[in-house]
Amino acid sequence: MTKSFADDNRLHEATARIRRFLDHDRPDTPCLVIDLPTVRDRFTAIREALPRVAVFYAVKANPAPEVVELLAAEGSCFDVASPAEIDLCLARGAAPGAISYSNPIKKARDIAYAFGRGVRLFVSDSEQDVRAVAEHAPGSSVLLRIVVESRGSTYPFGKKFGCAPEMAADLLRLAAELGLAPLGVAFHAGSQQLDPTGWDGAIADAAEVVLKLRAEGLPVTTLNLGGGLPAAYLERPPAPAEYGAAITAAIERHFGDFTPRVMIEPGRAVVAESGLIRSEVVLVAKKSYTDEQRWVFLDVGRYGGLAETEGEAIAYPLETSRDGGPTGPVVIAGPTCDADDVLYQHTVYELPLDLRAGDFVDLLRAGAYTASYSSVAFNGFPPLATHCVR
Amino acid sequence: MTKSFADDNRLHEATARIRRFLDHDRPDTPCLVIDLPTVRDRFTAIREALPRVAVFYAVKANPAPEVVELLAAEGSCFDVASPAEIDLCLARGAAPGAISYSNPIKKARDIAYAFGRGVRLFVSDSEQDVRAVAEHAPGSSVLLRIVVESRGSTYPFGKKFGCAPEMAADLLRLAAELGLAPLGVAFHAGSQQLDPTGWDGAIADAAEVVLKLRAEGLPVTTLNLGGGLPAAYLERPPAPAEYGAAITAAIERHFGDFTPRVMIEPGRAVVAESGLIRSEVVLVAKKSYTDEQRWVFLDVGRYGGLAETEGEAIAYPLETSRDGGPTGPVVIAGPTCDADDVLYQHTVYELPLDLRAGDFVDLLRAGAYTASYSSVAFNGFPPLATHCVR
Repeated sequence: MTKSFADDNRLHEATARIRRFLDHDRPDTPCLVIDLPTVRDRFTAIREALPRVAVFYAVKANPAPEVVELLAAEGSCFDVASPAEIDLCLARGAAPGAISYSNPIKKARDIAYAFGRGVRLFVSDSEQDVRAVAEHAPGSSVLLRIVVESRGSTYPFGKKFGCAPEMAADLLRLAAELGLAPLGVAFHAGSQQLDPTGWDGAIADAAEVVLKLRAEGLPVTTLNLGGGLPAAYLERPPAPAEYGAAITAAIERHFGDFTPRVMIEPGRAVVAESGLIRSEVVLVAKKSYTDEQRWVFLDVGRYGGLAETEGEAIAYPLETSRDGGPTGPVVIAGPTCDADDVLYQHTVYELPLDLRAGDFVDLLRAGAYTASYSSVAFNGFPPLATHCVR
Repeated sequence: MTKSFADDNRLHEATARIRRFLDHDRPDTPCLVIDLPTVRDRFTAIREALPRVAVFYAVKANPAPEVVELLAAEGSCFDVASPAEIDLCLARGAAPGAISYSNPIKKARDIAYAFGRGVRLFVSDSEQDVRAVAEHAPGSSVLLRIVVESRGSTYPFGKKFGCAPEMAADLLRLAAELGLAPLGVAFHAGSQQLDPTGWDGAIADAAEVVLKLRAEGLPVTTLNLGGGLPAAYLERPPAPAEYGAAITAAIERHFGDFTPRVMIEPGRAVVAESGLIRSEVVLVAKKSYTDEQRWVFLDVGRYGGLAETEGEAIAYPLETSRDGGPTGPVVIAGPTCDADDVLYQHTVYELPLDLRAGDFVDLLRAGAYTASYSSVAFNGFPPLATHCVR
């Protein structure tokens, strides 16, 4: 239980495996390379930190077929957002019963499709969706997502998802009336949640709903902790064990005598640290004779997979093919003609003074929320390719 | 010369043509439909407003092959950002001499590729790029982009592109020494530039460089006005003729006796008004019993082509299949599990009170910077499809 989210030796080995692949195969840049042993390692660390919790991998974080296949073989369940993600999981070895259709925004025909493929677990946050699940996936289990205050998260979730706890309680009662199994309550504590106690308030709110409905005789059993487990970027979060301890303590504190079934939907924490994006320096330039910092333009940018650099929210560790000598401050930007395609101009990065066009810049811990975000063809640049090493 | 950017009769006819196509063909939603006659109409209006200016369509705004083909047939030139855009233009009827490789961020091998395909006009803003053009596209023409203050623009360009005017002058001298044709000066006044006088300061800066170098005997002849011509969204900009008059006057004022060759690179102004995105309502919900506004979730969002709703910068006019009855305030969001996939929560939109799942919401004037931005597969949703009507 001493594994951290950034176990340096293991990450060093993973980076070495990835670089051997890059040196040998020399794929076109930019590209994302996933180290599959690291995916297994991170998944195992989370499972060990939360031993009685069912882990549903959030496929959206990285839908590479090899990643899904590995996790299915490891016994992971899957949190999916769409029919295409259901098809992917089933094709790569997941059982329909191991899938949660956790997107509360679903077309009726997509619910029907999921049901036809054997999916029987849905997350809702509205009357319309509960009624649609009852009609198109009769008899299925449903979790109601509540809106929570998220503190300590790099990406607080606002109000897009979830409903007020009293509405969730009513909708669980409605679900039961409509012949669905009112399974329990879900929430999301915010992505890249750096505070292990960041789940506490939401667990309290969820417990209140669950215990109230159980007192009424409704067989509500389950708490879905959602996503939010972090990855190590430039900043290093506490170890999975600390999250496990804080979450376990919060559940015991707020649920009292009743022991709920618990599920969690990590994405970033499973795959981020497994991935390295290799980019090539396209241009190093100053804008005037008095500029103190250089602009470094890479062949990957905000529209080529680095969407999470919006607002400089995620700061990837960088390594270059010229590391070792003196460095200086830089602004880092992508290759498109879009003025917003600037990665870092406020976050302080220093890169080698002799960095030049054709050199490599590797973005570490870039396995989550990158390749699948990339634009289909903005400015004529192709989407980020993914390669996997074993 | 009285055509406005939002000629209501023509736009009404265009929308009717698009809806006939949608009613008849019933393509899957979401999708973008481009009305090609409107593209021709907008291109013509710009050419008439700036009769002595060479129009280079910015392919990145909408790279649909039918759009490029139509514009090539109309005699447009093309501003491209990548080798793929060069291939597209050549395949759709553009001559190599009608192409400007206007992205100042270019790999050496991409310059060589462009040269091999016959491209002889490049825009640079750095010594490295000028030297790379000289080496890999010998004898070509080069424009140096200067950085400008952009006021009045919805998307000011910041400092990503361009260099200080004195550096641009030095690089034009260097270009001549290296055997390139030092053609002139380029700039960008900021995208969706709502002020017709917004080009004035940049034209003054460019004129100073051009006239100084001509006095030295360098055969600098050309002014590239870049992009920035606006489209009509919720707000309506002045007519093209006003832009033409303001720009023409600024050129005469700042260049004096010398009459430069002039080029312009509109993208948005050519294609935005030609496009309609048809989306389907996935969910209408309230988050609590006291909420005054509804949340309307569409099957298109920020990662499905509506990237320009970031910061609510672009506000598309909306029409629904239930328009006519009473309306109420809404928050509008996309279909992914991403909390940032919210389109409008500060911009005031009212939609019909009886709007429900399965209804259509059409986003008007959505022909620019939409389909090519969309994610390849975020959350498992496919990229936005484009259809064209004639």
